[in-house]
Amino acid sequence: MNTTELAALGQQLRVDSVRASAAAGSGHPTSAMSAADLMAVLLANHLRYDFERPGHPANDRFVLSKGHASPLLYAAYKAAGAIEDGELLTFRRLGSRLEGHPTPRRVPWVETATGSLGQGLPIAAGIALAAKRLDRTGYRVWVLCGDSELAEGSVWEAAEHAGYENLDNLIAIVDVNRLGQRGPTRHGHDLDAYARRFQAFGWHAIETDGHDVDAIDRAYAQALATTGQPAVILARTLKGKGVASVEDREGLHGKPLPEAEAAIAELGGPRTTHVRVSEPPAAAAPRPVTTEALQLPAFDVGEEVATRDAFGKALAALGGARGDVVALDGEVGDSTRTEEFAKAHPNRFFECYIAEQQLVASAAGMAVRGWVPYASTFAAFLTRAHDFIRMASISGLGINLVGSHAGVAIGQDGPSQMGLEDLAMFRAVHGSTVFYPCDANQTAKLVAAMASLDGIRYLRTTRGRTPVVYGPGEEFGAGGSRTLRSSEDDRLTVVAAGVTVHEALAAADRLAEDGIRVRVIDLYSVKPVDADTLRGAAEETGCLLTVEDHHAEGGLGDAVAEVFADGRPGPRTVRLAVRTMPGSAAPDEQLHAAGIDAAGISAAVRLLVEETVAR
Amino acid sequence: MNTTELAALGQQLRVDSVRASAAAGSGHPTSAMSAADLMAVLLANHLRYDFERPGHPANDRFVLSKGHASPLLYAAYKAAGAIEDGELLTFRRLGSRLEGHPTPRRVPWVETATGSLGQGLPIAAGIALAAKRLDRTGYRVWVLCGDSELAEGSVWEAAEHAGYENLDNLIAIVDVNRLGQRGPTRHGHDLDAYARRFQAFGWHAIETDGHDVDAIDRAYAQALATTGQPAVILARTLKGKGVASVEDREGLHGKPLPEAEAAIAELGGPRTTHVRVSEPPAAAAPRPVTTEALQLPAFDVGEEVATRDAFGKALAALGGARGDVVALDGEVGDSTRTEEFAKAHPNRFFECYIAEQQLVASAAGMAVRGWVPYASTFAAFLTRAHDFIRMASISGLGINLVGSHAGVAIGQDGPSQMGLEDLAMFRAVHGSTVFYPCDANQTAKLVAAMASLDGIRYLRTTRGRTPVVYGPGEEFGAGGSRTLRSSEDDRLTVVAAGVTVHEALAAADRLAEDGIRVRVIDLYSVKPVDADTLRGAAEETGCLLTVEDHHAEGGLGDAVAEVFADGRPGPRTVRLAVRTMPGSAAPDEQLHAAGIDAAGISAAVRLLVEETVAR
Repeated sequence: MNTTELAALGQQLRVDSVRASAAAGSGHPTSAMSAADLMAVLLANHLRYDFERPGHPANDRFVLSKGHASPLLYAAYKAAGAIEDGELLTFRRLGSRLEGHPTPRRVPWVETATGSLGQGLPIAAGIALAAKRLDRTGYRVWVLCGDSELAEGSVWEAAEHAGYENLDNLIAIVDVNRLGQRGPTRHGHDLDAYARRFQAFGWHAIETDGHDVDAIDRAYAQALATTGQPAVILARTLKGKGVASVEDREGLHGKPLPEAEAAIAELGGPRTTHVRVSEPPAAAAPRPVTTEALQLPAFDVGEEVATRDAFGKALAALGGARGDVVALDGEVGDSTRTEEFAKAHPNRFFECYIAEQQLVASAAGMAVRGWVPYASTFAAFLTRAHDFIRMASISGLGINLVGSHAGVAIGQDGPSQMGLEDLAMFRAVHGSTVFYPCDANQTAKLVAAMASLDGIRYLRTTRGRTPVVYGPGEEFGAGGSRTLRSSEDDRLTVVAAGVTVHEALAAADRLAEDGIRVRVIDLYSVKPVDADTLRGAAEETGCLLTVEDHHAEGGLGDAVAEVFADGRPGPRTVRLAVRTMPGSAAPDEQLHAAGIDAAGISAAVRLLVEETVAR
Repeated sequence: MNTTELAALGQQLRVDSVRASAAAGSGHPTSAMSAADLMAVLLANHLRYDFERPGHPANDRFVLSKGHASPLLYAAYKAAGAIEDGELLTFRRLGSRLEGHPTPRRVPWVETATGSLGQGLPIAAGIALAAKRLDRTGYRVWVLCGDSELAEGSVWEAAEHAGYENLDNLIAIVDVNRLGQRGPTRHGHDLDAYARRFQAFGWHAIETDGHDVDAIDRAYAQALATTGQPAVILARTLKGKGVASVEDREGLHGKPLPEAEAAIAELGGPRTTHVRVSEPPAAAAPRPVTTEALQLPAFDVGEEVATRDAFGKALAALGGARGDVVALDGEVGDSTRTEEFAKAHPNRFFECYIAEQQLVASAAGMAVRGWVPYASTFAAFLTRAHDFIRMASISGLGINLVGSHAGVAIGQDGPSQMGLEDLAMFRAVHGSTVFYPCDANQTAKLVAAMASLDGIRYLRTTRGRTPVVYGPGEEFGAGGSRTLRSSEDDRLTVVAAGVTVHEALAAADRLAEDGIRVRVIDLYSVKPVDADTLRGAAEETGCLLTVEDHHAEGGLGDAVAEVFADGRPGPRTVRLAVRTMPGSAAPDEQLHAAGIDAAGISAAVRLLVEETVAR
């Protein structure tokens, strides 16, 4: 498109953004208007995308990081002929797929959900990494950012990652409209301030007038010609550009234009230009295929093996069987044992250094492209990426997250390193699966099972060695459990997972010597839980005692309680959990101090059994 | 101290780090050894600190961001005469206050817990901000960082914040030992790479040999002489410096030295030099005092007021009555209503822009210094700061966090903006308090009550207006609840909080017309919960129906269930919660689609009542 056509297209995108927001009675048209020319030039002259084949392997990828500018995205879809005007005007209504912030669940051209600022660039960096090292079909990744969101550390985590990885297929466009939600940004229109920052992280920075379509065109061309480093286009723009009453004015963020009809007229009225978006190149790489039969590691019953070790070996084995499995590390691969995968499959291993947001964002970006990522760090440090995990669930992405060093059982390192709230965090993620295995064979089976589940899958592993209690032939999966001790005389049921399974077994055996029989359930699938087994145990033994190496809220105790919120009278239940702040001590001392070791369990059982007798 | 003395002190700190780790059988001596000379020069020649009066208002503040180098910190305490050698050797043992990573709960000279990397600099920036704008006693804030942790985005969020705020009282020291946990860092010994990044964010960067005590001394002097901008000292060091068998070698992170005795000899053997640390200046500013009686805003029953509005007004009022209250905003103060405080008390208002980790870190830093911070953003975006919240609880800090725009009730903006996992996150924080008020007067009282509680306090507010149901004279606090509908004929109890209280009341009134009486409890204190009231309701009505605008896990339903994990038979319970992924729609449509509006509650009640009859 030439200058006149591009300028007209920019106005059309503004008009449609204003119309959509007016129809909705809400939305962020002024944030769309500042970026309209940037979007017009991209769509008409540079993006390579087949809207009829969003899955085309050589399609460029576009991420709208400033997700609140969604009317601009939908206006562009209309201009590209992907949606009709009638649908555009369903924006933000019940049932419409054109949501306030874009999500890929129902709109096939959206790569990832945005709306939590500072996530678009990190995820785009993940896609670009997949493009460069995995897909290799030559596509470019474009991400349109706001200037306000550059205050997020996650942006600089991504800048560092992309710069270090020389992602010259990644182009960030920053709509520097100088106004945030409540007022001016830190740096206003000082493009140099942003350029210095990106350059320091190894990027090629290009400054441009964001309303001069020819200048924008040249900037994109320069960005595409950049090799060996990612490029950022810093575009000086005006919020609400094109309508004098709102242009460059504070206090108008997230509000439809006060007089939409007059604004549309001022913008030149409705237009219906259709853009012929460039086709992607025909070349398309085949997807990786299964390379060999899955040979999971097998461990002997009674052997002492840390579940983190089993995870590392199982992941390496899975990587051999499935060419689509990739692994990501937060610079603790020697501790999480992801290093096993790194050794076996170095081309599918990604070191993300100590940057947990980028770790999860990279995994998300790879999942966007159909890869099956396993991202690992200490369980405690996954809390750093909570918002990214939440957003990945909104995207409907399937990613595997593995947290090692869970609970007080880690010992001397103290509370900063103990995952004690990870189960609560992951249970509350929509559609998630949460596994907490107690032995090596179970871990191996769950590592393999995770790969094929939907949504966010979490596996919690343990630092220290625990005895293998299951044979390598046993099967485990979502919603399962194992009853490890059971008799007709069981006085109650101990429900445990991970390290506490072994404490429960020791307690059960000790109590049995005194004639007190208790059932022991290994509830390795914390979400979904095996409701039938728990109900059966409650009916048959009358009381459930949950024991978890986790805070008392949101973990195993809550998971068990949820089963009994079914309108029927609940069983007797008691919870053992970590209720005090731990310090440094040996693992067995920690479990004892928290009252979740065999001694603590035995004492609780005796108390409950005596209470029952007393009644 | 002169060159010889400083060098000897560095060796002493190394020896004591090796000894402490050897005694513990674990720890990170090589990470301590690289920074020993940096610490020696700081302690002997630049730090102004009275170890006998850690609360001295003019004491410099020191934060060990690389918390795993704790033996170095404890060795410095010994050199300063603050602890004895015997205590040093209790490192990492059960009951010792010298934990694997430093925590301030028991060690008076530790400002904040560290061990989750990338948090020291953000919190130090918060302390420095308090120093400059609140305390004004002239102290400096020193923070010793590792090089690995510079990969964390939170470090650059802090760099941006400190640069923009011209915090020339903040000095970061980076121990560039080039080795992370599993291998080399991204930039190795390339000090320039780090210098470029800090300079881009407005810092003065100084490069030095981190083992040349005179050079270090000059670097500190230069940093102290820097005005108008924060300073960073980038020190080239060797991990394990001083012991040839471990110096600059990979694979030795987090391990005691293999041959401790030989290493100690190589380092010149034990020394017992005591350092006379400089006294802080005598000047000490008085703490702020109560300036006027608290006049909370009062709202008329029946009036329609958003609880976020009530929060804003109450916080401004509280700021008038308490001079120690400060407010922090994540660039959404117009939405959270923190802007009310900003207008009333601009000197105690801190804009943190869209940087939620720094928002919470700044609050933590101010709490370290005795201020009472209220930090606010959307509930959903507080997940971004989860790891900082977790660490603040380990520090034992009292901070108030306020999340607005909770739940599907926000309406059209869609799931990225909806806090649907915040209750789960905050309940699982050790020692936390969680409030979710339903009306304006209740909100105001809870805003005031929060200020005096221990630990992490969370208040969840609502975007839309809700009717005022309580008079301004009613009192509310931690562990409370209100029974809003009650009769002797109640067939069950609806337990609600926030927006769902109003839906529950509407349902109760509708059902009453059909002769079905239900009790309604407003469980505004989600943690701790009012166990007695819930137990009484369970006994008297036989069934509890919880209704929450939150995912089904970790929130109100789980909080109620926890009450009944007391070893006694549980009541009948049923949960209504958000179980599907919302899209865009009006607030009432959202509540209806999630089944948590009056219609959904009524339908559930009828089903439960019929079931009871059928039995």
